Amino acid sequence: MKKIINNPSDFVEESIAGLIKSHPDVYALAKDNNRVVTRSSKASNKVGIVTGGGSGHLPVFTGYIGKGFLDACAIGSVFASPSVDQMVSAIKNADNGNGVLCVIGNYGGDVMNFEMACEMVEADGVKTKKIIVADDIASASEEEKSKRRGIAGMIFIFKIAGAKAESGASLDEVFNTANEANENIRTLGVALSPCILPEAGKPTFEINDDEIEIGMGIHGEPGIKREKLKSANDLVDDLYERIIKDSKLKSGDNIAVMVNSLGATPLEELYIVSKKLNENLEKSNIKNNKTYVGRYATSMEMAGMSITTLKLNDNLKEMLLSDSHCPFWSN
Amino acid sequence: MKKIINNPSDFVEESIAGLIKSHPDVYALAKDNNRVVTRSSKASNKVGIVTGGGSGHLPVFTGYIGKGFLDACAIGSVFASPSVDQMVSAIKNADNGNGVLCVIGNYGGDVMNFEMACEMVEADGVKTKKIIVADDIASASEEEKSKRRGIAGMIFIFKIAGAKAESGASLDEVFNTANEANENIRTLGVALSPCILPEAGKPTFEINDDEIEIGMGIHGEPGIKREKLKSANDLVDDLYERIIKDSKLKSGDNIAVMVNSLGATPLEELYIVSKKLNENLEKSNIKNNKTYVGRYATSMEMAGMSITTLKLNDNLKEMLLSDSHCPFWSN
Repeated sequence: MKKIINNPSDFVEESIAGLIKSHPDVYALAKDNNRVVTRSSKASNKVGIVTGGGSGHLPVFTGYIGKGFLDACAIGSVFASPSVDQMVSAIKNADNGNGVLCVIGNYGGDVMNFEMACEMVEADGVKTKKIIVADDIASASEEEKSKRRGIAGMIFIFKIAGAKAESGASLDEVFNTANEANENIRTLGVALSPCILPEAGKPTFEINDDEIEIGMGIHGEPGIKREKLKSANDLVDDLYERIIKDSKLKSGDNIAVMVNSLGATPLEELYIVSKKLNENLEKSNIKNNKTYVGRYATSMEMAGMSITTLKLNDNLKEMLLSDSHCPFWSN
Repeated sequence: MKKIINNPSDFVEESIAGLIKSHPDVYALAKDNNRVVTRSSKASNKVGIVTGGGSGHLPVFTGYIGKGFLDACAIGSVFASPSVDQMVSAIKNADNGNGVLCVIGNYGGDVMNFEMACEMVEADGVKTKKIIVADDIASASEEEKSKRRGIAGMIFIFKIAGAKAESGASLDEVFNTANEANENIRTLGVALSPCILPEAGKPTFEINDDEIEIGMGIHGEPGIKREKLKSANDLVDDLYERIIKDSKLKSGDNIAVMVNSLGATPLEELYIVSKKLNENLEKSNIKNNKTYVGRYATSMEMAGMSITTLKLNDNLKEMLLSDSHCPFWSN
């Protein structure tokens, strides 16, 4: 295991401390919990936006705190859910009397703990609503959409919910806009190589040198199929057809897309993917309003990438493209 | 070789085409050369800023085109210098009658070809000046500074020269500011694992599973020493001492720092590095004005990182922190 770390058991705390030390104008550690990060300056008159989840996915989740994005985040150990207490702290730190929207990736522990946390803070008078992001079309059929996992599409929800909250909208309005975005997001990815968990020192899965796995989850959850490595164009065609079929995107629709690296896959490869993806969209006469290319949701040094589409209306487009301040987002 | 590519010989053209297709508001292909990228809207009344170099380092070089950054870039094959013709095209595309500053990484072919290109355009009436970036303290001693290679520190020069040009300064003024920054930059890196060249299909170098190489170049050029993997804190201390000694940074100085991943090394590890780096700076009473953490200058999927320090005065600080528009830079 070749990692630039100290004691593996300090991996999470040290990386959070480094994030805050590096960007003190954006992030701060919560006063009441060392696994909760908040904005450095608390917003005073808006709906709070909170998330939480396991470590090992930077910039997800904590990185997306900032003006026009999240207010607070509960941080679990590597690939592990945060505790209920951490989530309660994140929600209370984000609340300023206008209620809090929790944007949650659809993983068992995250959802269950956030449900308990929301009940607990409601008893203290904090109003909450929840969005469960389930954009990964590989993880369950359309009929069982509620079982789908949340992956890179989550960042579009962070951005849109964050922008809507910043505009002064009510909790119901922020929820409705985030929910509308959530209904219109689809992601499908491919894994090329595993990452190594710092404490275990072992790869998350094994895969042959000439194999890829379509739809594998960001923690190594089984995908749709394992097959021989193919060309970038054939791979994009495969993912594209599945996404279009599932999303029912059609000629004339407006969308935004994200081409996300799981970590090791370099920008050059992402842009080769983005070229073919944009060509396919042009052929389908689907109007791409904005392409995001980069490492938005990773699994440390895992190789692979995902494609996300978000169908836009005027409201979603305005929120997505609005100004924000976060080191991991370029407007 | 597990890469998401098509024909390896199309790697460069396809990744450029994807970059432009993904960000058509920022980049455009030059009309006269398919290996030259320009801004999508040519600036009309400022000094042009140009660079050029081999592919395989995104966002370096092409990615740093944008308002407040570069105007045009000549793009070589993977790890290979662009041709004189490509550089001539980049310079002419960037010129609008106010002269052009060429910011060049200190590699033999790049420097030689830019010198010839500058001579050729001067014959056509285009005034040019050159900054040779040589920030890598591992690649030659202080006495032989002019032999040092240019690595991640280059991006600080792109930003500062770009901002100065945008402010309406003359070619001499832009040169002087960029030159001042160049004198005050130091970078030192460490390599953990090689990248694989798409056409060759082979790793750029071999290194044992428990070894690192301090000061190895971004193309696998030999470094200062190869040694056993050590803790992040010990590694940062080693790099820090060498950088401070070389730069002569002292108590009370103002600086900015960059912690750059060579590609595969994830953000979590960079932030562990940044934590220790910032702690060392605090102990030395050196004032860090801004920390940049991310993949700013890569070698595809190479693992490793570098630390860059830039000593600031008021002018350099203002230029570094000024507004800009580039997908790979967050102000």
